[in-house]
Amino acid sequence: MRILQIAPLWETVPPPAYGGTEAVVSVLTDELVRMGHDVTLAASGDSRTRAKLLSVYPRSLRRADDLTDRNPYDWSHIATALEHAREFDVIHNHTGELLMAMSNLVSTPMLTTTHCMTTHDTEFIWRRYRRAYNTISRWQQAHFGRVAPQARSMGHVYNAIDVETFPFEPAKSDDLLFLSRVAPEKGPQYAVEVAKRTGRRLIIAGKVDNYDRQFFEEVMRDLIDGEQIVFFGEADAAQKRELYARAMCLLMPITWDEPFGLVMPEAMACGTPVIAFNRGSVPEIIVHGRTGFIVDTAGEMADAVSEVRRIDPHACREHVREHFSPATMAANYVRVYERLVADTWRAHTAAASRTVSAAIIENGPAVADGHAIARTAS
Amino acid sequence: MRILQIAPLWETVPPPAYGGTEAVVSVLTDELVRMGHDVTLAASGDSRTRAKLLSVYPRSLRRADDLTDRNPYDWSHIATALEHAREFDVIHNHTGELLMAMSNLVSTPMLTTTHCMTTHDTEFIWRRYRRAYNTISRWQQAHFGRVAPQARSMGHVYNAIDVETFPFEPAKSDDLLFLSRVAPEKGPQYAVEVAKRTGRRLIIAGKVDNYDRQFFEEVMRDLIDGEQIVFFGEADAAQKRELYARAMCLLMPITWDEPFGLVMPEAMACGTPVIAFNRGSVPEIIVHGRTGFIVDTAGEMADAVSEVRRIDPHACREHVREHFSPATMAANYVRVYERLVADTWRAHTAAASRTVSAAIIENGPAVADGHAIARTAS
Repeated sequence: MRILQIAPLWETVPPPAYGGTEAVVSVLTDELVRMGHDVTLAASGDSRTRAKLLSVYPRSLRRADDLTDRNPYDWSHIATALEHAREFDVIHNHTGELLMAMSNLVSTPMLTTTHCMTTHDTEFIWRRYRRAYNTISRWQQAHFGRVAPQARSMGHVYNAIDVETFPFEPAKSDDLLFLSRVAPEKGPQYAVEVAKRTGRRLIIAGKVDNYDRQFFEEVMRDLIDGEQIVFFGEADAAQKRELYARAMCLLMPITWDEPFGLVMPEAMACGTPVIAFNRGSVPEIIVHGRTGFIVDTAGEMADAVSEVRRIDPHACREHVREHFSPATMAANYVRVYERLVADTWRAHTAAASRTVSAAIIENGPAVADGHAIARTAS
Repeated sequence: MRILQIAPLWETVPPPAYGGTEAVVSVLTDELVRMGHDVTLAASGDSRTRAKLLSVYPRSLRRADDLTDRNPYDWSHIATALEHAREFDVIHNHTGELLMAMSNLVSTPMLTTTHCMTTHDTEFIWRRYRRAYNTISRWQQAHFGRVAPQARSMGHVYNAIDVETFPFEPAKSDDLLFLSRVAPEKGPQYAVEVAKRTGRRLIIAGKVDNYDRQFFEEVMRDLIDGEQIVFFGEADAAQKRELYARAMCLLMPITWDEPFGLVMPEAMACGTPVIAFNRGSVPEIIVHGRTGFIVDTAGEMADAVSEVRRIDPHACREHVREHFSPATMAANYVRVYERLVADTWRAHTAAASRTVSAAIIENGPAVADGHAIARTAS
């Protein structure tokens, strides 16, 4: 198939550090190429991909600090992708709502993946969207069914990680790990509570965004003692893998409905169980009692920590291989693409056959210029 | 002609106070309807027009304070206009660069009017723009010729005002008038200098934007004494007309290249001469010695003030009627639309005739099914 993947221009594909969407796009694109598809990736010019690269700008906008207004570059990126749409069997939108708003201007089958949740304002676009979309977890389906009544849901396709780049380590330390943005909805304060209850060391790794700075200063600062509660700061790709591999388990005491949560398969790929609060996609990603535990409170999380040695690291990695590998994700997406292309072709031939039928009915059964036209209606 | 006018969603058409673009769109749209064209206006739902109104949102975004992110509404506005493009002979874009970025996604003849100057970032769109545009003064032509090498210039079409709504007043006071945003590039400090040199009273009418607040406090505040130098504040539509009508003359000591400057025809429509610095479009709008004076310094402006009683108020109003009336502007735009539509049709038939010629050459001269096909090539 001829496939156009459209990544956000904001971050390089793959991203050097943060950038969940761009990481998934990278894995998907390279896997589709490996499968033999003819793939083009619309992304920043400094992206690295096995596919052909379609780029209007040489750098990702995150690093283009010399620009005052980044919108024109983003608009050009989306417009250029749409101008090329007719050269593809299917176009896959990972960029969100601007492209969705413009989606009726092209007729190529289009899939939008719901990498982000909606806001009151972006729902203005979702309510009008009439093309196809997929969610990244079953949990997201109900929400998008509500906000996008005119769109066509293609079900959910789970995100994937490049399992082979995550080191498998069955021998674990005694330390707990919290790895995420240090933000109230990620629940680092509950991770500290679990550490206190179990008497274990906790490593907190993650960046503090500007809008989470107050939370960090007011809530977290005093909890971090550098002994039992250690703040690692932002971990790069290599450090992240090391932290996962040696941790006894990953704690994910989220207080919001995480739509997917890449850290769960990443930790499990290293053979590290995950203990998480039962929100959003969590029950779809963790197999309770087999790859981790799903709990409701910090007290239950502390209890689960004392059970976590019973989890087999091999089962964790195997679970990721089966459900969150590039091959699984790409195969699922190809199935979605094929349904979209087949349905578009059926609609096309149906329209053509309506035109022919109308002509036959208008002219009656006929033999014209030596070419017999069979009448399909009885 | 079937014409789609696309106004910014930011401000109501016509605007209650500021909004030069929306004022011009309003005048143009109503005049085209009066001429008998089939006109649709894409604008905010609270707009008032003689044309059909195409609207995705009930209010102008300037007044939608409950919205966090206005972009999705703007995207929908542009997308909806483009979705309807094929229902029109021509579409006229007054909204700037987002629609320009998307312009290759539709084939309807399109004209963009350069209501705003470009920035380093918006030039990214202009460089790629391949459709038609017109400027609002001859002065703008060189600039846009440079930044839009692939676009088709249709020359300049001057803005218009609804002359009949401006009261003609030949009996003038002795006061000078400055009517504009109170901003350094508009030169209110030079207007004060002219008032001091001539010993006349100066009325300063206009709003102070947030980013001009420092200029107002540091430069203007001490100059305003409430006696000789009077700060009127922001004038509404009725107050503006009263100020123009009774002023001896309008001072426009601009320090930037004003691309058009609606205040000049507005003042002249009231029979009020304009004395302006020689920047941007000024020499195209003022006839030196007949409807005002074009000068280079505050000293020359003060000298011109002593000559301004020689200007005939009737000549000022007549000049506006002839060059900046709705009828003149609309007739000029219709000429541009007709060239665009005719050229698009010619390109279409040329493409069709190439296809026919290719078929003839391939098949040779032929008589098929009793229909003779004349061979045009010798």
